[in-house]
Amino acid sequence: MVKAGVIGSTGYAGAQLVSLLANHPHISLTYLGSHSYVGKRFSSIYPSMQGSCDLVLEEEDIEGASRRCSVLFLALPHGMASKLVTKEILERCVIIDLGADYRLSDVSVYTQWYKSEHTSQHLLQEAVYGLSELKRPLIAKANLIANPGCYTTCSILTLAPLVAENLIERTSIIIDSVSGVTGAGRVERTDSLFCECNESFKAYGVTDHRHTPEIEQELSALAGQKTVVQFTPHLAPMNRGILSTCYANLKDGVGEDEIGAAYAKWYAEESFIRLMGTSLPETRFVKNTNTTAIGWKVDPRTRRVIAIGALDNLIKGAGGQAVQNMNIRFGFAENAGLASTVVNPL
Amino acid sequence: MVKAGVIGSTGYAGAQLVSLLANHPHISLTYLGSHSYVGKRFSSIYPSMQGSCDLVLEEEDIEGASRRCSVLFLALPHGMASKLVTKEILERCVIIDLGADYRLSDVSVYTQWYKSEHTSQHLLQEAVYGLSELKRPLIAKANLIANPGCYTTCSILTLAPLVAENLIERTSIIIDSVSGVTGAGRVERTDSLFCECNESFKAYGVTDHRHTPEIEQELSALAGQKTVVQFTPHLAPMNRGILSTCYANLKDGVGEDEIGAAYAKWYAEESFIRLMGTSLPETRFVKNTNTTAIGWKVDPRTRRVIAIGALDNLIKGAGGQAVQNMNIRFGFAENAGLASTVVNPL
Amino acid sequence: MVKAGVIGSTGYAGAQLVSLLANHPHISLTYLGSHSYVGKRFSSIYPSMQGSCDLVLEEEDIEGASRRCSVLFLALPHGMASKLVTKEILERCVIIDLGADYRLSDVSVYTQWYKSEHTSQHLLQEAVYGLSELKRPLIAKANLIANPGCYTTCSILTLAPLVAENLIERTSIIIDSVSGVTGAGRVERTDSLFCECNESFKAYGVTDHRHTPEIEQELSALAGQKTVVQFTPHLAPMNRGILSTCYANLKDGVGEDEIGAAYAKWYAEESFIRLMGTSLPETRFVKNTNTTAIGWKVDPRTRRVIAIGALDNLIKGAGGQAVQNMNIRFGFAENAGLASTVVNPL
Amino acid sequence: MVKAGVIGSTGYAGAQLVSLLANHPHISLTYLGSHSYVGKRFSSIYPSMQGSCDLVLEEEDIEGASRRCSVLFLALPHGMASKLVTKEILERCVIIDLGADYRLSDVSVYTQWYKSEHTSQHLLQEAVYGLSELKRPLIAKANLIANPGCYTTCSILTLAPLVAENLIERTSIIIDSVSGVTGAGRVERTDSLFCECNESFKAYGVTDHRHTPEIEQELSALAGQKTVVQFTPHLAPMNRGILSTCYANLKDGVGEDEIGAAYAKWYAEESFIRLMGTSLPETRFVKNTNTTAIGWKVDPRTRRVIAIGALDNLIKGAGGQAVQNMNIRFGFAENAGLASTVVNPL
Repeated sequence: MVKAGVIGSTGYAGAQLVSLLANHPHISLTYLGSHSYVGKRFSSIYPSMQGSCDLVLEEEDIEGASRRCSVLFLALPHGMASKLVTKEILERCVIIDLGADYRLSDVSVYTQWYKSEHTSQHLLQEAVYGLSELKRPLIAKANLIANPGCYTTCSILTLAPLVAENLIERTSIIIDSVSGVTGAGRVERTDSLFCECNESFKAYGVTDHRHTPEIEQELSALAGQKTVVQFTPHLAPMNRGILSTCYANLKDGVGEDEIGAAYAKWYAEESFIRLMGTSLPETRFVKNTNTTAIGWKVDPRTRRVIAIGALDNLIKGAGGQAVQNMNIRFGFAENAGLASTVVNPL
Repeated sequence: MVKAGVIGSTGYAGAQLVSLLANHPHISLTYLGSHSYVGKRFSSIYPSMQGSCDLVLEEEDIEGASRRCSVLFLALPHGMASKLVTKEILERCVIIDLGADYRLSDVSVYTQWYKSEHTSQHLLQEAVYGLSELKRPLIAKANLIANPGCYTTCSILTLAPLVAENLIERTSIIIDSVSGVTGAGRVERTDSLFCECNESFKAYGVTDHRHTPEIEQELSALAGQKTVVQFTPHLAPMNRGILSTCYANLKDGVGEDEIGAAYAKWYAEESFIRLMGTSLPETRFVKNTNTTAIGWKVDPRTRRVIAIGALDNLIKGAGGQAVQNMNIRFGFAENAGLASTVVNPL
Repeated sequence: MVKAGVIGSTGYAGAQLVSLLANHPHISLTYLGSHSYVGKRFSSIYPSMQGSCDLVLEEEDIEGASRRCSVLFLALPHGMASKLVTKEILERCVIIDLGADYRLSDVSVYTQWYKSEHTSQHLLQEAVYGLSELKRPLIAKANLIANPGCYTTCSILTLAPLVAENLIERTSIIIDSVSGVTGAGRVERTDSLFCECNESFKAYGVTDHRHTPEIEQELSALAGQKTVVQFTPHLAPMNRGILSTCYANLKDGVGEDEIGAAYAKWYAEESFIRLMGTSLPETRFVKNTNTTAIGWKVDPRTRRVIAIGALDNLIKGAGGQAVQNMNIRFGFAENAGLASTVVNPL
Repeated sequence: MVKAGVIGSTGYAGAQLVSLLANHPHISLTYLGSHSYVGKRFSSIYPSMQGSCDLVLEEEDIEGASRRCSVLFLALPHGMASKLVTKEILERCVIIDLGADYRLSDVSVYTQWYKSEHTSQHLLQEAVYGLSELKRPLIAKANLIANPGCYTTCSILTLAPLVAENLIERTSIIIDSVSGVTGAGRVERTDSLFCECNESFKAYGVTDHRHTPEIEQELSALAGQKTVVQFTPHLAPMNRGILSTCYANLKDGVGEDEIGAAYAKWYAEESFIRLMGTSLPETRFVKNTNTTAIGWKVDPRTRRVIAIGALDNLIKGAGGQAVQNMNIRFGFAENAGLASTVVNPL
């Protein structure tokens, strides 16, 4: 059994991760760090986990934790992980960071979007962007894995085959995404109160959401040239789920056949991607799973493709992909401890 | 036009009250006090109110406000109003307090349930319990009106005819109530986050909720003897609404006819009470209105009556009843500025 | 008092319309036709309306109703109104059709999108497209008013100034919309069950939703040339509300100033349009009102404008705009019986 | 691997059962019968199950199915199972009926509450009431297992120790329950539409819900004398979950210690019952699990106990307990294929 720890374990992403690790066949959950609940049992914060994870929450001490664990997950606000991780820690412990600090390889892009200096530039070259399906060989060898954002994972997976196979006009990409409220984290703020979210729908982060440069970085790499996207997130009154509706102009000669072939070529063998063709995904189809479902339609009137991806933001969009990356890194079966289909359909 | 002010105007109860006052035919809304948003426009906090109430929020200054307004509403956490109100203020300004400080006439009961000393005992005898339908003559002359709690209003109105007409066993009363989440106020706490309330149901305040002594006080007065009730509130994943399911053993000889006659006798002429008989109320039937809907069934197997009341916790349960009380106090039509039926059924 | 009737009065759009008419200062609600509930009281189907509208539902008889009423609203599935309306009826009664039959002036477009023949071509030239803010002079004289669709109203109002002022590339328009579930009507089908909609989000009608040609017809008229749009509706787990996120490439030299000036020029005087600038609308801001709220952002990176409109699909998107059109047609104050701000903010 | 089949597999209870059986370590899912979807794949009705259960739905043929399967689950409207099951079928196949037909051992009680004749009286004595924790020895040998109702399971498990240990007044029991909307099944009716349930709360079946006699039958058996209860179900706007708030007068001398001891005596060893003491359960704590969580408070003022039970109505309240019963009957580990804690806390 591999010993694992989580720093930032009581936020929504952290707690989802804990619940997956607690049921993982090859993992011994050893350490849970918390900012706010030191000394309490994890299951007193999440009573649903009684009997499944009753560990006592400890101080957030990456130094000590990295000596007790072979893999350490960080689920912290941005800017914090990069202050904690060191070369020495990475030599003895695999770090999987669910935050944003190591996702952007170009420091100037980080500075531009996050409006702050990067405090750990020297480790950026060690970091691998942990989009499991696209980076397996690198993830398998990395000691610092930057787990992608939730919108990012959904958007990149939905668009990757179209961009990589050169089927769409790069400059025309528009990603219109919707998330459930767990995406805002377990933070006490007015905007996240039940009555402020319930029975309403809104856009936010229009033109400046920080997942934009991640998407651009990865699509640019796939395209072989700089790719700029329009990304607009929205908030829907539900707990979980992301749906990304992606628009792009088709290149000449590209139609449904080419689109379908590209998706099949890239994903037919992937156990955590479900291709739905023209029967489109709904977020509930992948709720509580690590699966990304993708469907698409070609519009002959407008010569556009509308590709729609759906995933569970806390699983494939956070804790689940972190476990998937750990599985790749440690040589476990890639689906160990992860569900690809919903156990309970509602 | 009567000048009115609100202290604590940006909480949910306060904001609902503001929206009613802003549309009231006889009121000039003159002063809005706020703890957290001084200097901002009310409509910047509640953009839905743009054009309807764009007043700038001011410091909470009851002294000054009572000189500018003829009626002042207090929507504050318990224990605060009783520190602010004075005899002098009451001489020049009608105070309608939506908090708990002046609801209980027996100071020892207050101390027992609120675990704190009452700081304004000398004014308690001036206060009238503002349950409009039951206290009209007193409200019409009072300068200090203690607006009842939301659960309280629903429970007392539902049970009053049964208790007053001596149709049920006083010791058998059980009130099982459910509220929407606005009842918890606009307070930044984990329990009120969307994802903590959504898709779940729970009881809280079991055996010790502070609305219990209010209900007992008023039912005791109606019964002519001390009446103890079992009151259990629950939280449902919706914004608004309270439903109280009230159980009591029938006295000998009492059946459906007597129950129906009692409700008709007490409420047939009330414009804000809708008697539904055995077709029972749902909270949506009274959402966004000042109406309390009441239905009932007699169970011949168990010799109990199950009486069910429903109201909108922010209107009849808070701001609406406050306006109703103001209307009574100032001699306006009792329904001025208040809706008794839903304009929009969903 | 003008006598009004509604055919199809128990669906969601019809019921919303009834509730507005029942409270309208110049209307005497005279006739309610229903397919399924003949002989029952309206308020037995919608108990929230008890005391507000207790009319008995009658057979759907447009002939008879048009003799009893001066204005008749039709809220029927598409293809039905055009079988019922005749020249004779239009001579004695103003018809406001909330359905799709008279919205498209080009019969071939109707046939293409609705996959059926149009049965009332001879009356199409009499019909005026009832988008109140854009067609006032025509509406004021029309006896057959085709009330626009919900998505349509939101999309056209949001884009009209940008298209008419020639600020955006016509071929680049993408409209990504979201609706609450009342948009699906009060129809007993699996897709609309609580548990099938709750906690999920999906796109539907991708590339072929029937509101597309309406939007194109009106934007083409504003642009002075044929305009094709990409329109994608989605379903969110809430009762009411539409949010349209509209994307378009800016023409050279166009920036925030030009965009803002165009909106001000077109809408500054409109009582039912609220311009929010870069502070964007949420559907709750206009819930239960006839207002459309519009905000926008210019993205300098992509040279696009993202304009976001929000409205209540049952009011401005259906019954409210129908009343607004009636007000225009009958010379009432345009806001008679209609709220522009929310009485209850939650 | 034991071959299993389900008749009525596409309703919510049936589908939940299918999803559990599809992932069960000792079961080969062999036959799925459907009334409405014959010839379609199960996963086309529930796309979330793609890859997990792609069986083609067959005609509902209990005769044929009982020859192909060793265990057959019936998830049918009441009155249908009793027309299908025969002695011959029971000789070759274990029947686990999720409906009501075999739950009541007294035919006259069935007739009284279901208002119809029982068509299979001769098999009633073969049937065992499948409340797993209370009937294990009988279940282990039964060929006809009557799986209890959802409210029933929650209510009986919550009250059993108090009744059996003679701690409460039998005549004082009041059960106030709340269910999510899956409890209404996947039936196309107006009452179950999203917009009719969302943002509202109601009681239904007051005094005459059919789960009442089940609860009385089992509590009477535990008490050793006839026990009548007051049972009132409510509907909350959420997909899953039942919470039962149970009230009873304490016998003399009974206090918190005796209550706690009784629960511990009965349930301390039960893997699917979580005793929470005075920290009360919420439905989300057991969502997606087979666990029943129970908490309680003693009210010294009223001398009552308030015991609160929570379960997932589709799992412990339907499909999960059916699997648990199968596990008992076939000698599998009782928790095979069943989760006792939530994998995903939200």
